[in-house]
Amino acid sequence: MDPSTARPLQVTVWGEGRHEQTEPGVARRYPDGMHGAVADAIRQHLGEGARVRTAVLDDPDQGLPASVLDTTDVLTWWGHCAHDAVDDALVERVHARVLAGMGLVVLHSAHHSKIFTRLMGTTCNLLWRNEGDRELVWTVDPSHPIAAGVPNPIVIPEQEMYGEYFDIPAPDELVFVSSFTGGEVFRSGCTFRRGHGKVVYFSPGDQDYPVYHHPDVRRVLANSVAWSAPRGELPGLPPVDFAATGWFEPRALLE
Amino acid sequence: MDPSTARPLQVTVWGEGRHEQTEPGVARRYPDGMHGAVADAIRQHLGEGARVRTAVLDDPDQGLPASVLDTTDVLTWWGHCAHDAVDDALVERVHARVLAGMGLVVLHSAHHSKIFTRLMGTTCNLLWRNEGDRELVWTVDPSHPIAAGVPNPIVIPEQEMYGEYFDIPAPDELVFVSSFTGGEVFRSGCTFRRGHGKVVYFSPGDQDYPVYHHPDVRRVLANSVAWSAPRGELPGLPPVDFAATGWFEPRALLE
Amino acid sequence: MDPSTARPLQVTVWGEGRHEQTEPGVARRYPDGMHGAVADAIRQHLGEGARVRTAVLDDPDQGLPASVLDTTDVLTWWGHCAHDAVDDALVERVHARVLAGMGLVVLHSAHHSKIFTRLMGTTCNLLWRNEGDRELVWTVDPSHPIAAGVPNPIVIPEQEMYGEYFDIPAPDELVFVSSFTGGEVFRSGCTFRRGHGKVVYFSPGDQDYPVYHHPDVRRVLANSVAWSAPRGELPGLPPVDFAATGWFEPRALLE
Amino acid sequence: MDPSTARPLQVTVWGEGRHEQTEPGVARRYPDGMHGAVADAIRQHLGEGARVRTAVLDDPDQGLPASVLDTTDVLTWWGHCAHDAVDDALVERVHARVLAGMGLVVLHSAHHSKIFTRLMGTTCNLLWRNEGDRELVWTVDPSHPIAAGVPNPIVIPEQEMYGEYFDIPAPDELVFVSSFTGGEVFRSGCTFRRGHGKVVYFSPGDQDYPVYHHPDVRRVLANSVAWSAPRGELPGLPPVDFAATGWFEPRALLE
Repeated sequence: MDPSTARPLQVTVWGEGRHEQTEPGVARRYPDGMHGAVADAIRQHLGEGARVRTAVLDDPDQGLPASVLDTTDVLTWWGHCAHDAVDDALVERVHARVLAGMGLVVLHSAHHSKIFTRLMGTTCNLLWRNEGDRELVWTVDPSHPIAAGVPNPIVIPEQEMYGEYFDIPAPDELVFVSSFTGGEVFRSGCTFRRGHGKVVYFSPGDQDYPVYHHPDVRRVLANSVAWSAPRGELPGLPPVDFAATGWFEPRALLE
Repeated sequence: MDPSTARPLQVTVWGEGRHEQTEPGVARRYPDGMHGAVADAIRQHLGEGARVRTAVLDDPDQGLPASVLDTTDVLTWWGHCAHDAVDDALVERVHARVLAGMGLVVLHSAHHSKIFTRLMGTTCNLLWRNEGDRELVWTVDPSHPIAAGVPNPIVIPEQEMYGEYFDIPAPDELVFVSSFTGGEVFRSGCTFRRGHGKVVYFSPGDQDYPVYHHPDVRRVLANSVAWSAPRGELPGLPPVDFAATGWFEPRALLE
Repeated sequence: MDPSTARPLQVTVWGEGRHEQTEPGVARRYPDGMHGAVADAIRQHLGEGARVRTAVLDDPDQGLPASVLDTTDVLTWWGHCAHDAVDDALVERVHARVLAGMGLVVLHSAHHSKIFTRLMGTTCNLLWRNEGDRELVWTVDPSHPIAAGVPNPIVIPEQEMYGEYFDIPAPDELVFVSSFTGGEVFRSGCTFRRGHGKVVYFSPGDQDYPVYHHPDVRRVLANSVAWSAPRGELPGLPPVDFAATGWFEPRALLE
Repeated sequence: MDPSTARPLQVTVWGEGRHEQTEPGVARRYPDGMHGAVADAIRQHLGEGARVRTAVLDDPDQGLPASVLDTTDVLTWWGHCAHDAVDDALVERVHARVLAGMGLVVLHSAHHSKIFTRLMGTTCNLLWRNEGDRELVWTVDPSHPIAAGVPNPIVIPEQEMYGEYFDIPAPDELVFVSSFTGGEVFRSGCTFRRGHGKVVYFSPGDQDYPVYHHPDVRRVLANSVAWSAPRGELPGLPPVDFAATGWFEPRALLE
């Protein structure tokens, strides 16, 4: 519940939704889609405080018509095999809404999504291996709200390995660092403020493993949504403004 | 002189070069172009350590054919009224070269250049007023090499006012904060690491004032070039790499 | 109200309380003490969510016996002429409680308090002049909760000037930058995470001016308390721990 | 060689020097002391550019009389079992010299040294296990000079494990993150600017393993010294200064 408006947070969980259609293992693992599991995690922890809807790439308007995007306080984004299919115009609309104040939670393989690389300005390239490494997610910023209520480390029995060098700007806050069975490390929980919006990147969550059913991962998903939420109405895009001398003076305001 | 290669740094000073053609005042103020003054400042301070060339928008290939860009270690960029005229394909080439390790020094009104907003991922909007405010440039990171050799504050008698909120990501290092006669403040010296490259934004330098003839500003220009220089050859774009388990082990390397 | 414990936040406003005794102007300006005005500002904005008490240097145990300090979630600190009179042992107790998770809001001349320099590790020296400069407090991080609800800039008609170079570590988050009539600038709103605790430094507030009656300043005081509050019970001092191989594994926990 | 003074950098390698006296294994591993190996690494890479001396706790004045400390540009510090034996007055002198501009490179178990905790303001506690884990040192800031010339990762066959949560302020720059055989991670290469000085913490280097003979570790030691070096003479402690209105104006300077 947003205390400044006394209305529930409007959360949209966007999923690519393709692996669920083409890979029986993914469909079995996530009968409501990966987006369904993410949405369920947010509902579980934020309860009445959030109204959560889901949207997928194959929905009309790729799931994000103006009626949806323009009423979203926090958007979560998972994509993998169809990044290129996302319309550039939609990416620009999402980008503008983040800068205007919408929260954005970017998940796992969405490191390569158009919206994330657009916001970061870098390649977001990384090292990878999909062989069921155990991932340990270590908290390096224990007073951060995103790390609230999870053990240190979170133990994920099997996951895809994502490793450094991860080509992102130095995060404003580094919350989690993961290690993998093979010895690689990864900055797996990062925050970035961009314009009036807050962005979280959280890397656990490959389609080949039931990571979004993991209780600690689910808590982090909800924490990330709560942390990135705007206060009340979105402030809008930071403007270019001409300012006469003394514009902020009370006398200037009165005249 | 780059100690790891024993060759001079290759610096390209890019200027839009339009105001000098259309405004007699600018042409008088900068008889060799604004780019000429910037290049001269770098030569003055880096001497034999740098080989400096200039390039302007109206040159063939907008001044940056492959033969120039691909041999540039540090690029400086000033633009204002013709940002839109810069080819998107050129912006992508410059962007890729920054991520591959080239230094980039972005000057004044180039806050709105395509290359800077591409790297930042934000609007880079700000507040402004062009009425000859005195600008004071205060050092808030005195051990930073970019602030070497300048007084605190640098006093610029007349300048355009740029004020907050400046819509950039929080800089990795905040080196200078300016104030203006009217009371506004601005984060006027910022560094950002992006990919393998280092980016500096330094705001003093409007075409309507002789700022690039100011001795302290000239020192900062040269310091910024030196700081953002790569070590030796550019490392190249950060890759996406598949990594087998144990790939870094000496035994793996030997087999 | 702390949602995780459903109890009000316990806030202790500590004031040196000496200027009020010796300077009639300060006593007139702050009939309930400067600490009284700070406490009132927090109550005004946090309402039922906070239980606020005040404590001063001349109270028994310098105002912070174990019964008070050990039940404090957020401590605010204002001091000026009597920093040296604060017992070193008390400073160590406050320091330990911050690292254990208590919030700390350090105000104005408390930049030179023992507790702040202890936490920062630097001199916290600065430039100053007490001649009634107008202070403008500019927001440079508009999505930060500490900046919620205040105009940009906050206009304080008369204040002591504090200027750069301010010898602090680079703040984790820079929220406000001030300018003064004389042209100086100052990083006036800063956050620092130390141990499990969150620290805010906010510079407006000299005894010679009615700054803590200023409505925007009062909002920032309350925002700072809310932001620095721990979640529920304090986690305690970060430990030194020996860790056997695999200590975090479920099987290790079961055996 | 410091280009601004054309004199070699004065480096003092301080070692506790006790394990070498009491443990035959350490003495065999480091026949010239651990400090001898560190000094040798710096000489190897900085050559004529540095003049390196060593000092140990059992030397007169604990190795750092004024004649040594006051002529040191960069100090490296290794200690473990005798932190408490270091005089508080010496710690204050070293602290003041760092804030005045001296570089400081803090090694391994010196995370608990008086000088490091004094500069950090936190406990610097951590997790540990001494069972010969393999340590992998990953570069997460590839354009940083401290990471120049080393592979990613550095492979250290056997080392003590240091793990998170490491109770330090968020570093200004995070250069290295290590993982260990047991799966723990650690922020193993960090920089901190304090006052006019630059501080590096680099964690590899336990007395029970020949880590300071490792070629990549030796390169990092030398890089850290070079990076933290002041430019020319030390600027001195940041002052408290009174500043009359307009003090920086040329006319004020002339009158």
